[in-house]
Amino acid sequence: MTIHPPKDINIVPFVSVDNMMKLVLNVGIETFLMELAGFIEEDFKRWELFDKTPRVASHSPKGVIELMPTSDGEVYGFKYVNGHPKNTRDGLQTVTGFGMLSNVDNGYPLLLSEMTILTALRTAATSALAARYLAPAGANCMAIIGNGAQSEFQAMAFKALLNVNKLRLFDIDSRATEKCIHNLAGKGFDITFCKTAEEAVEGAQIVTTVTADKQYATILTDNMVGAGIHINAVGGDCPGKTELHPDILLRSDIFVEYPPQTRIEGEIQQLSDNHPVTELWRVISGKEKARLRPDQTTLFDSVGFATEDFSALRYVRSKLPGTTYFDSLDMLADPDDPRDLFGMLLRAAQTP
Amino acid sequence: MTIHPPKDINIVPFVSVDNMMKLVLNVGIETFLMELAGFIEEDFKRWELFDKTPRVASHSPKGVIELMPTSDGEVYGFKYVNGHPKNTRDGLQTVTGFGMLSNVDNGYPLLLSEMTILTALRTAATSALAARYLAPAGANCMAIIGNGAQSEFQAMAFKALLNVNKLRLFDIDSRATEKCIHNLAGKGFDITFCKTAEEAVEGAQIVTTVTADKQYATILTDNMVGAGIHINAVGGDCPGKTELHPDILLRSDIFVEYPPQTRIEGEIQQLSDNHPVTELWRVISGKEKARLRPDQTTLFDSVGFATEDFSALRYVRSKLPGTTYFDSLDMLADPDDPRDLFGMLLRAAQTP
Repeated sequence: MTIHPPKDINIVPFVSVDNMMKLVLNVGIETFLMELAGFIEEDFKRWELFDKTPRVASHSPKGVIELMPTSDGEVYGFKYVNGHPKNTRDGLQTVTGFGMLSNVDNGYPLLLSEMTILTALRTAATSALAARYLAPAGANCMAIIGNGAQSEFQAMAFKALLNVNKLRLFDIDSRATEKCIHNLAGKGFDITFCKTAEEAVEGAQIVTTVTADKQYATILTDNMVGAGIHINAVGGDCPGKTELHPDILLRSDIFVEYPPQTRIEGEIQQLSDNHPVTELWRVISGKEKARLRPDQTTLFDSVGFATEDFSALRYVRSKLPGTTYFDSLDMLADPDDPRDLFGMLLRAAQTP
Repeated sequence: MTIHPPKDINIVPFVSVDNMMKLVLNVGIETFLMELAGFIEEDFKRWELFDKTPRVASHSPKGVIELMPTSDGEVYGFKYVNGHPKNTRDGLQTVTGFGMLSNVDNGYPLLLSEMTILTALRTAATSALAARYLAPAGANCMAIIGNGAQSEFQAMAFKALLNVNKLRLFDIDSRATEKCIHNLAGKGFDITFCKTAEEAVEGAQIVTTVTADKQYATILTDNMVGAGIHINAVGGDCPGKTELHPDILLRSDIFVEYPPQTRIEGEIQQLSDNHPVTELWRVISGKEKARLRPDQTTLFDSVGFATEDFSALRYVRSKLPGTTYFDSLDMLADPDDPRDLFGMLLRAAQTP
């Protein structure tokens, strides 16, 4: 990856929410997801060179604020992200975020970007990327259990990367399902509104669970999961928050992003610390086989990892040149003589 | 501290470099330093309630990029800061930074600010605040060894908080001293240009060392330091970077911000791990005596701590209402229905 420091190194390009939406729509949602998955795949292939610092969490009674840094040796990136399950009650997002890339060689920031929308896109792109390696060949029908903020992004990513065109939707709140059906109208899906989770998984080769705000919920029980399907478990992503019955885990082959993090935050927090799991990057790099038998149940226990945010920021940065989808922030003091910071301040008094 | 979430909670006030300079000049440099020291003092007094997470460092051959988070339980803050000693050769700052405050209860950001200038101000305010407790009574003459980017800020803070009006300046590069004298002209100082460090410390009751880019340098040797002075050691602030001969440390009473960090980064990295030190917050809270005897040598081994950045951001935030010294960043996606992030994206296609 080559770094092109901007001419005005003190100016940091900033992608606002408005500009992110314009960029995504201009590129096209499916193309964006496909290209983004390409960047994520590329970074999973060079997994070993990333600095995989654990995320730094600040917990409070109502939620958590986290910083997720990583670096590939040339570019450093971090994401600020919160998780406040009860925010929805106040009309706020449970998860918001922003991220930054900077130049490892001089420490100067290269990009600041909103990451609420971008995180939903990267999570969906990662899910679909994993499924491209793990799901049964020709799978075109997906159940989505939990039809909240992330559900449509998941649907679009699976359509873009795997040609999934049949959706079976269920949510305990039928208004969420109605919203999801409304938003996906005209996007090329054959959608079934399901009244129970049991009904949703009938005939689906892929089951995505993406519910929120549940303590040790059991969205899927063992008898609901037939042999040969792929489970994309997105919603269980912090300590105490899981979606699957442990019996499902015990008869699935489990794929994870980064075991030290997933054992704390993912579905596998319900299993022993040494339960065997396969790292997704090893499958993507061809070091491990993905699906071995048609009757195998595969499970991607997704929690989201810093490298995926890095890939997403790297992708967004690659799309900006020549566009107007960013603002220029005067974020870094850059006196002509680096030792003369105070002189720069004094001289500012002379400019209007 | 009361939190007043802005009406438009998705909009984050951003203080650019330009606006920071305007704010500082509008408030007045000395008033700014004095008020800022007040906020720092206030937070040192409630030290025990802060979440003191260690900083998260990403090291590379050319430098380090760090995230410094903290929280007082109501407001969370973090600073991004780099340290690249060789940046000066390329005309860049060795240290740049920016910071953020956010609301612990919902995770939404409250402020984004440049922190290159603000860090120089908070470091100087902290130095002068410590000296107000530690320096000999009536001290009005300070030596500054190292006349780079931080030197004038140190001088102004000591003037504002302690009425220091005599400066004795030395730098191995006389052009740095000339720059410092030029910048401080008309600010009410009686300044002596010194040709050696030995000359600079003559008659000074306070000695500030603020040099850069040195591996285990010895800016001050034992015979240069008379009894009864206060040493403000600012420049030694990372592993392998120190300024004082260990013999000075051995006969000084040493005050530090946060021992677990200072033992790694400060002058005391040269001493044994159990060498006695006093935490500055205990002096400021009245739990420990500062200076006991006139002939006592006191040393503030300053490395900079996350709570000081927090205080600085909190102070800047308090000054913004009613001013124009900030921009409004559209940083957080905030759909009317929090579950309808995708719908917000789709509707953006309908706005020009």
